[in-house]
Formats: sequence, structure tokens, C-alpha cells
Amino acid sequence: MVREFILFSRIGQTDSSFGSLHDAGRLDILHECIVSSLFLSHGLRRDVVFHAILNGPPNPPVHIKIDGQTLYDVRTDMETWQGIIKKILAGKQHPGISRDKTSFEALLKSKAENEKCHIYVLEEDGKDLQDVEFKGWEKEEEDGECVVFVLGDHVGMPKKTEMFALRFGEKISLGKTPYLAASCITVINYTLDRKKIKLNV
Amino acid sequence: MVREFILFSRIGQTDSSFGSLHDAGRLDILHECIVSSLFLSHGLRRDVVFHAILNGPPNPPVHIKIDGQTLYDVRTDMETWQGIIKKILAGKQHPGISRDKTSFEALLKSKAENEKCHIYVLEEDGKDLQDVEFKGWEKEEEDGECVVFVLGDHVGMPKKTEMFALRFGEKISLGKTPYLAASCITVINYTLDRKKIKLNV
Repeated sequence: MVREFILFSRIGQTDSSFGSLHDAGRLDILHECIVSSLFLSHGLRRDVVFHAILNGPPNPPVHIKIDGQTLYDVRTDMETWQGIIKKILAGKQHPGISRDKTSFEALLKSKAENEKCHIYVLEEDGKDLQDVEFKGWEKEEEDGECVVFVLGDHVGMPKKTEMFALRFGEKISLGKTPYLAASCITVINYTLDRKKIKLNV
Repeated sequence: MVREFILFSRIGQTDSSFGSLHDAGRLDILHECIVSSLFLSHGLRRDVVFHAILNGPPNPPVHIKIDGQTLYDVRTDMETWQGIIKKILAGKQHPGISRDKTSFEALLKSKAENEKCHIYVLEEDGKDLQDVEFKGWEKEEEDGECVVFVLGDHVGMPKKTEMFALRFGEKISLGKTPYLAASCITVINYTLDRKKIKLNV
């Protein structure tokens, strides 16, 4: 069972001409979300795939996919990821990371229809995360099964995009506290870790 | 009720002569922990106090205290905090942040004995966070009451320091998954947020 995260970045810059991640349409949020999705202390989560769809200038959309299974030569700090993101946006390679022109809508449709993933969209008025029974999650591992979590950055998703996402997924919520996107991912990872541990006991 | 976090940094550099936080004894972990302790989306947690005790060269210990109530002119990105931490270690000022020579032991003793805080020490074999009844937390707000969470960075606390902490506090755990220090703080904040919300319903 793979867990995937999709970050919708409304203004994230889509070329490599930036001085800092913060000034590149808040790509520092992308960095924070990558770390909370994929990193443990002294190790990587090999069962996580992280996607970002950048919708900022000059050439949106750009889809960046980071696969925990094949990712290497990384650490958590911002300098490292500023270098990697710049490289990827300039069309160069890094192990475990790919870049293409897939739109948010196309990615989500493919996850739902082709890969039969279960899609969850983070919204304040969704079902409480702790009350969600993750479909398939508590069963034995099965090839191709996956749970996908969709979230926006500090600006959030446009209404139209949100409505599109909800055609495929169900709304879940971390409550009324307005957490950073990266904090949401950490809490989801922790919650899924606990469900898995409970299963194995 | 105030919630406080104390990060014990075994090798965090204690002067301002560094090029990057990562190379300054992993002060990038300090930055990550500051963000997860104090920041919400578009806002600060005014009821959180964050402490770091840096024990690296050249002049340990250095105690940095960041008070959410008076902190301002900050954002989450690393450049901002690299500038602030450098400034503070060079003896300059920033609103809401202080620096002194208090040791870990002295800080913890004072929290426990003078301020009557409830101390919790993160350890893998502690009581599960979700089963802990936080003393005082679910009561009405009272002056001076506080819960304090103690955690180490990537290296962890020396055995002697850990034993000292456990004289004053009780062991709690996030389970067997080895989370980043910053992720532990995020999960604790989320857990306390939920307890508070439940009380108000």
C-alpha cells in the first residue's frame, strides 16, 4: 500500500530563475512538505510518493513527482532542496524525482480512475481525520492500492479546482486549527503509522 | 495554560560564525523545531514558549528562549531564521527572543520546582502520547500552569542528561516510528489542540 500526497501550489514558480525558494512563489512550502512527507529521523519513507503541481509563472503547470522508493542523495535542509528543485526545474535529473507537464486535474483523474486510488481532500469542514476509516489501508498489502491526500499551500486551491478534486475524493479535516501544509502531512503520516501499528499488534 | 518545548541540542554551535544552519551543528533542526512549535498557517501560537539548549562549541551552554506571546517580525523560511539565530548568538536583540547561559539542568529544575510545570520527556519506550492524561491541561486556564515537553535532536540526549530529566518528568512516546524532532512537536501540538477542542464542545 502506497501513500501519496499531492500539493497544489497556486503560485509556485515553474522555472529555475530564482534566488530563494521563498521568493519563488513560496517554494519554501514545497520544501517543508517534501520533508514532512518523506523523511524520518535518519531515514526515508520508502512507501511514500509526493507530488507537487506548480501553477505559477512562467510556464504552468509543472508536475514534480518524488518517489521515496528510489530517492537518494538527499537530506532535510533547505540548501539541499533549493539546489535539487532548481536542477529539476532546469530540466536536469535527480534520482527518484521526475518532472513533466501533467496538470492537477489529469493527475487526480488518473490516480482515481486508472490506479483506483482512494482520494482524500483536506478541507476544514471535512470528516475528522481520526474518524476516517481508510479504505483498504487496514487490509493486507495489495499491489497497486494507494491512498492519496490532496492539499493546498498557503493560498489554497481555487474553488473550481477544489470542486474537481471532490468529484473523485472525500473531504477530510484536521479540525479548526489552521495548520501549515507541512504540519497536516506530518499528522496524516502519524495517523496512518498508528493504524498500521494497530493492525500488526 | 502555557505549553513549552525544550530542545536539547547536543552539538548546536554557540557562536554566530557559521555559513549555514546545517553546518552549525545541525541548527537547521532548531529552525524546523521553531516552526513546528510556534507557527500556524498565517499566524503564531501565542500560548507556546520554545527553548533550545545548545551544547556545541565554542561556549556551551547557550539557552535560547522564544516566547510566542511577544515574538514578531518572523516568517517560517530558513533564511529568516538563519538571520535571527545568527543575530541572537552574536548578542543582538529580536522581539520575543532571549539568550542566556542557563543550562539544561537548571532550566528543567526551575520549570519543575519553581513554576510547578508538568514535565514530559520523549522516549521511545514511554507511555503512548494518546493515552497520556495531561495534568491540568483539561481544566480551566490557570495562571502559571504549564506543560513542558523535552526532546533531543538527531543525536539525542546523553544518558546522564536523560536520567536527570526523568527525575522531574514522565516518559511519553510517539511509538516506534523514529520521527524527526520537528514532527514530534507537530504531533504533540495537534494532540493538545484536540484535547482543548474536546473540552470546549
